[in-house]
Amino acid sequence: MIDVALLGTGGMMPLPDRFLTSLMCRLNGRFLVIDCGEATQITMKILGWGFKNLDVVCITHFHADHIAGLPGLLLSVGNSGRTEHITLVGPKGLQKVVESLCIIAPELPFGIDYVELGDDIVEGLQVGGFVIGACLLEHRVTCYGYSINVARSGKFDPIKAAGLGIPKNQWSLLQKNENVFIGDKTYTPDMVLGNQRKGIKVCYATDTRPINRLVDFVSGADLFIGEGIYGSDEKLGKAVEYTHMLFSEAAGIAKAANVKELWLTHFSPSLTCPGEYLDVAKNIFANTALGYDRVNKTIFFEG
Amino acid sequence: MIDVALLGTGGMMPLPDRFLTSLMCRLNGRFLVIDCGEATQITMKILGWGFKNLDVVCITHFHADHIAGLPGLLLSVGNSGRTEHITLVGPKGLQKVVESLCIIAPELPFGIDYVELGDDIVEGLQVGGFVIGACLLEHRVTCYGYSINVARSGKFDPIKAAGLGIPKNQWSLLQKNENVFIGDKTYTPDMVLGNQRKGIKVCYATDTRPINRLVDFVSGADLFIGEGIYGSDEKLGKAVEYTHMLFSEAAGIAKAANVKELWLTHFSPSLTCPGEYLDVAKNIFANTALGYDRVNKTIFFEG
Repeated sequence: MIDVALLGTGGMMPLPDRFLTSLMCRLNGRFLVIDCGEATQITMKILGWGFKNLDVVCITHFHADHIAGLPGLLLSVGNSGRTEHITLVGPKGLQKVVESLCIIAPELPFGIDYVELGDDIVEGLQVGGFVIGACLLEHRVTCYGYSINVARSGKFDPIKAAGLGIPKNQWSLLQKNENVFIGDKTYTPDMVLGNQRKGIKVCYATDTRPINRLVDFVSGADLFIGEGIYGSDEKLGKAVEYTHMLFSEAAGIAKAANVKELWLTHFSPSLTCPGEYLDVAKNIFANTALGYDRVNKTIFFEG
Repeated sequence: MIDVALLGTGGMMPLPDRFLTSLMCRLNGRFLVIDCGEATQITMKILGWGFKNLDVVCITHFHADHIAGLPGLLLSVGNSGRTEHITLVGPKGLQKVVESLCIIAPELPFGIDYVELGDDIVEGLQVGGFVIGACLLEHRVTCYGYSINVARSGKFDPIKAAGLGIPKNQWSLLQKNENVFIGDKTYTPDMVLGNQRKGIKVCYATDTRPINRLVDFVSGADLFIGEGIYGSDEKLGKAVEYTHMLFSEAAGIAKAANVKELWLTHFSPSLTCPGEYLDVAKNIFANTALGYDRVNKTIFFEG
């Protein structure tokens, strides 16, 4: 299982009642955040999951509304007592941008590891306990969408384990995909686990036109968090001009990719009542919900 | 007259119910802001005075809680349609720090003029309609307090003006300290105005120990906005270590400088109920009030 929370749902500028779009994930007590605009640390504080266990921050692109809050967030993580390294993932140039922003945060009590993305599609990037994918989007500047993947091992077979003579107190290690050593014998998980089962996949993509690569990338996701900059299809021209995605376009991606659920986010400040347009998306993809600040859910493994 | 509003009253990090310390002044419809930590633009939006007429931002020092919100604020000022230059005032190195932060705001629709302060005391710095003073404080890094001064010309003497034969429809120009030209004659304001009268002085000083220079600087102010990082005098050791000022110390400055009113601000996040300690300050300087987010008042000329 994984917990996900939308820290904010706005685009362009933080508003008093709508912080900037950002996603926080909690997996086995550790945190990953995607995007960090100005004031993200405030909504994180309201959410209340904490700061110290933040292991990864993924940045989609270098526009201010997606990264301006990073120095403040890192300082608050530092104030929480963290000393372990933190990993930042983002487009090429990430380290230069972060170091430039952090001129006002020169003495962090932890190191930063940088992962700069180059390829159009990145899969299986392991950072701490998180398995991350990335997909190059179509925006005015280099911008990536992300996936967070939680693998689920095969079903444990107690009859096989007993048959092999493995003591019961060692079974949990094998269930956790670790080897067990007894005398000169090594027992590996594949001896007692069935085929790998379907895991959990959460995808996040804002600031993009609805491109085919994105459909492939979010295919079969349990939750797709997608941009809906405007609700009305009449705003298509503007969405094309500024390379953003409409409610209907995000719903089209969700449908084509056969995801389970769509949350809309990254609303324009001019879109004061996103709810007025929810049906535009639901008519295309029924299981669409509007994102709102700090909406969160726990996603469980199937079955 | 001048309007003043404390946009926030916190130190170190923005909290959900307490934004970072910042002062906004409105004079003849134009704005000046002192300090701009993360999320300052949000509380400015709640206050509702607007963004477009922001002519000056004074930065006290380069710690994140006083400047991290600058790129976002400048972008929002740009989005408001401003194209006129804006002036930034701060310690030496200001331009370098701002340009480093603005790596994520590279295309502002207005120019920036920089004023970097060098001397311990700066007086009569005129930026747009504002007359600004600055005072070097005692903090871990170079830090300035600021004063905003509104001059008041002498009383207009209509008998003198009539005696000089100046037409009535020209009087308002002289009252506004402008010359009047009639035929080959020039009439100057000093011909019809009495001695200059007491103006308005607003002072702002956070992140400092209570030094003598500060007493001189805020002398006779109508409003002194001063740091009260902790309420209890038992925290003196910590205040000295981190070069901050206690409630009692700010009140001591207010008393010694014979100001009219003191607002306490820049509360530590650990100080959840500043009100518990208000009397500590009031026992030293009676006309002390606790700052709170967006407290504001109009200060009029005397008499």
